[in-house]
Formats: sequence, C-alpha cells, structure tokens
Amino acid sequence: MTVYNRVALIGLGLIASSIAHAMRQHGLAGEITGHDVLPETRQVALDIGLVDRVFDSAAGAVEGADLVILCAPVGAMGDIAAEIGPHLAPGATVTDVGSVKQAVIEAVGPHLPAHVHFIPGHPLAGTEHSGPRSGFATLFINRWWLLTPLDGTDPAALARLRGFLETLGANVEEMDPHRHDLVLAVVSHTPHLIAYTMVGVADHLRRVTHEEVIKYSASGFRDFTRIAASDPTMWRDVFLTNKEATLDILGRFTEELFILQRAIRMGDGDQLFDYFTRTRAIRRGIIEAGQDTAAPDFGRAVQPPEKQGKG
Amino acid sequence: MTVYNRVALIGLGLIASSIAHAMRQHGLAGEITGHDVLPETRQVALDIGLVDRVFDSAAGAVEGADLVILCAPVGAMGDIAAEIGPHLAPGATVTDVGSVKQAVIEAVGPHLPAHVHFIPGHPLAGTEHSGPRSGFATLFINRWWLLTPLDGTDPAALARLRGFLETLGANVEEMDPHRHDLVLAVVSHTPHLIAYTMVGVADHLRRVTHEEVIKYSASGFRDFTRIAASDPTMWRDVFLTNKEATLDILGRFTEELFILQRAIRMGDGDQLFDYFTRTRAIRRGIIEAGQDTAAPDFGRAVQPPEKQGKG
Repeated sequence: MTVYNRVALIGLGLIASSIAHAMRQHGLAGEITGHDVLPETRQVALDIGLVDRVFDSAAGAVEGADLVILCAPVGAMGDIAAEIGPHLAPGATVTDVGSVKQAVIEAVGPHLPAHVHFIPGHPLAGTEHSGPRSGFATLFINRWWLLTPLDGTDPAALARLRGFLETLGANVEEMDPHRHDLVLAVVSHTPHLIAYTMVGVADHLRRVTHEEVIKYSASGFRDFTRIAASDPTMWRDVFLTNKEATLDILGRFTEELFILQRAIRMGDGDQLFDYFTRTRAIRRGIIEAGQDTAAPDFGRAVQPPEKQGKG
Repeated sequence: MTVYNRVALIGLGLIASSIAHAMRQHGLAGEITGHDVLPETRQVALDIGLVDRVFDSAAGAVEGADLVILCAPVGAMGDIAAEIGPHLAPGATVTDVGSVKQAVIEAVGPHLPAHVHFIPGHPLAGTEHSGPRSGFATLFINRWWLLTPLDGTDPAALARLRGFLETLGANVEEMDPHRHDLVLAVVSHTPHLIAYTMVGVADHLRRVTHEEVIKYSASGFRDFTRIAASDPTMWRDVFLTNKEATLDILGRFTEELFILQRAIRMGDGDQLFDYFTRTRAIRRGIIEAGQDTAAPDFGRAVQPPEKQGKG
C-alpha cells in the first residue's frame, strides 16, 4: 500500500528512524532517502537500512520526493527549509515533527515554494534515547500525532498525510498552532525543564555525594532522570522557540510551589493534604483515559527479580 | 525458617500488606497480628489473609509480639508508641517503615520501655497505590532497606532484624538518621513535592482544559502524575516532619530553576545545552548502577499495541 513514492527524511534520529522502520513494515514508501548533518549518522542509517539512499545535503535528499519529513531539531529547520526550498518537487508535501509549532511555521513557511503543501505536525511520542539506532516500528502506535495545518491547506494532501500517519499507528488530530504550543508547554515542556532542574540540583549537592544520589534514586528521583536524559539539542531548541508559553507556565509553577513551600514552613498539614488529594484524582483521569498503565510503578516494581537492577 | 514467633503490623497499607505477603511466602513469622485505625481496612486484612488476627487497638495487636513493625504515617507514630509502650513484651524488637527518621526517633523513642529494642528503618520501596489490597510479596526484592540504629543497639537484635529484612528480598544498609533525612529529601521528598506542584498547576489552568491535559499527558506529564498519585496522608506527614531538609533542597531547586528560566528568557542556548548534557550523564550513572531499566520509556513504549492505552 505505497502512499508516497519517495519519502525524504531530513535528520536521522529517534523519530526519523522509527518512521523508517514503520514505513518498511507497512510498505508505505516506494523509496526512502535521507540526510543528516553528521557523517557518522548518515553511515549508520545506510548500514542498518533505515534509508535506501543517503545524501550529504538536505537538498539532494529531497529531489523528486513526494513527502519530505523534517526531523531535525526545531532550531535547525529554518536553514534546512531555505536550502531545500528550490529543490522541492511540485505537489510534494512537506511536514515536520517539531515539538513547537508556531516557531516552525514562522521559520519554515517563508522558504517553501507555493507549489508544495506544507502541513506542520508533531508526534507525541518518543523515548529518552536518541540517534539512528534508537528507533523502532511501534513507537507511534496509539500515540497522538498532532497536525497544525495552515489556512487553505489542500484537503487531498492533508487526507493523504493523515492516512500515512494513521498507518504508522498514530491517532491524528488537528489543532491550532498557538493552542498546541500552550498545551505542550503544560504537558511536556515545563515538566521537562523541571526534571532537568531537579536532576541538576542533585548533581550540584556536595553534602550528599553523587554516589548516594544514584544509589538511592529509586525513591522517586529516577523518574526525573529519565525525562532529564532526553536529547539536549532538541530540548534547548524547544525552550528557545516556545519561550513565551514555557515562561508563562513556569511562572504559575513557581507560584504554586511557593504556596506549598509556605505550607510546609508553617506546618499547615490540611493545605498539603487537600492539595495532594486533588492531584491524585488527575492521575486517575489519565489512567481512565487510557493514557498510561495502572500497573504499580509503570510495571517496573513487579518485574521478576532477575530482570531488576542489582542493588 | 521462622525468624519471629509473632509479628505485629501496625497500619495495614501498601508496605504492611507487602511485608505480610512476603512473610507468608518465606514462612518468616509464626503468627501475624495487625491493627489499623480504619475498621474497613481491618476487615479487608482479615478477609484476604494478610493477618491471622486483627485488633481494634494497636495495644492489643502488640501483646506477645517479638517483632512490631510500625507501618502508619509518620505523623501518627508518636501516639501509637505511647499507646503500645506499656504492652510491649520484654526483648521485643520495634521497627518502623517511616520515610523520615529523625522525627520518628524523637516521637517514638521516649515512649518505648528500656526492655525493647527500637531499630528505626525505611524501605525505599513503594508504588503509587495504597491500601491493604495494594501489597505484593516481591515489593522489596533488590530494594534498599535503610536502618538507622541508635547508639548502643543490641547487635543480636539488629542482626536478627537484618536477616529478616534480607529474606524479604531487601538490601539492608545502616545510616545516620540525619544523613538519611537529607539524602531522602534529595532523591524522594523534593521530587515528590515538585511533581505534586506541576500536576496542581495543570489542574488549575483554565486556558488549557482538563481534558486536553489528560489527553496529551503521555508527553512527559504523566510521569509526574504517577508520583503525584501517592498517598496524601503519608506525604503530608513526610513534609511536615522532614521540613528543614526539604526546605533546604527546595531553596536550591528554585535557585537553579530561576537560572534556567533566565537562560530561556535571554535566549542563552549554550547554557541550556550544557545543563541538559550534564543531567543526561546522571541518568547513565543510575542505569549503570542497576537502579533503573535502560528500556526506553521504562519499557512502556515497546508494549504490544493491545496492551497500550487506546487513544
């Protein structure tokens, strides 16, 4: 069921390699071409069969492609668009997987010729791993893939891309780009920044040795370290390009934190108890909505002993 | 291999029920007695066989026990100790599972007669679930169980308790109670408070509807909600009784957060990149130390589709 004759992947990390594996599994692309700025990544992508052909330049990779997927960090997308613009085939669809949408639209849009369909997108899927070897075909199954199409987008091009993404396993929804950036600031960007911060605090602490922080990390902290192990370039760009919404949510976070901090200082147990009771209800909502496992500790705690880490 | 003839569990939630299941599995106790303040919990504990006998009062449950384990929230332990003190058998060992150690020692110690061995403890194990039905026998396998024995603790009583806990599957270590409270403020208490706060922020936001926060929670936020679903009473007491260390670490956290917030506001990408690169190394240390799974997304992402939540 070939949907596109030639798909070009620009940037060959976790998301691109997962798309490649899933496209292969479902026979969605006649040919897969690719480009990455790192020569080593290009070689790996060729060696493990992610792409049929790899190009030293993004412009080379997009020649003749009817679908181009920009999988580079958000901060690199403007330059890539400027480079590939003149080389895009008439009628081609260009999409991206960036975690921020308004900045991508502003950076990419102006460089694309009128004869291509630009449909910005964002798969809410990923792991803390990165690079061309980290992808797997099932990454997008039952995950959201948000599209933020611009006014006047060709319905046929949109429907074709939707069908392609749904075959990868994703649940596709359309959303306004401004709203996307605000929602993601709440559910993803600010939590990531906070996790990075908490891990940084633990690292700086001199009174508690590094060894003890790692040794006893299972008591909550290790969940933060997983999030804080995500790709540094990607996240730098997310915060720089979704600045306004992230700072807004961070301000609210700090306000709330100070209220709880004060409750601790004043010994106000009732306030703490009420707060913790409300947050518990949200977890219940997420499990009822099928967005996470109800298994204790994400299922880690009930792993058989031989699969658990040795203390 | 009975290690204690009669073990009394005071408070019958996640930890006590897990201890009960593990004791049964290994035949560690001749008899298990129990008490909980909630009549319903007492009935469940009896119905599902956690305990052989259940008592309306803590004093009743400890009569004749040679091991008493206080599994109630930290804030309740002083009153429990006052109640059971006169009823403890000579030579009995009293331990607890509280997440804070200095406050427990201060609250419990004065009420215990000289003829019992008081050995405070803390298993670094748990899930976000609570109540008598949430326990399971493997909870402590390869988890740390920290003991903070007081000066002059009887070596034989300590060795006996150690052996018991090791048979439950735990890795037992001894630690100074002050140091325990500081380390736990870093690896557990402050991360929990932050997770509670972030979930609270999301709940308050009016511009982003509740539905959207839940719907798109998989992008990082849901990890926070798991932590923020933990028992509200337990956590209220943790923060009230480990106030000093938690406020210290919170202060450092806020400092760091403001530095990153400023870097975002000023567009200082290098600073963000360097920070995120350092925190990634800590995750690597935790995985190398066997304290967490290296599987992407805790192994959730590679679940077969039929086990995943439906979007």
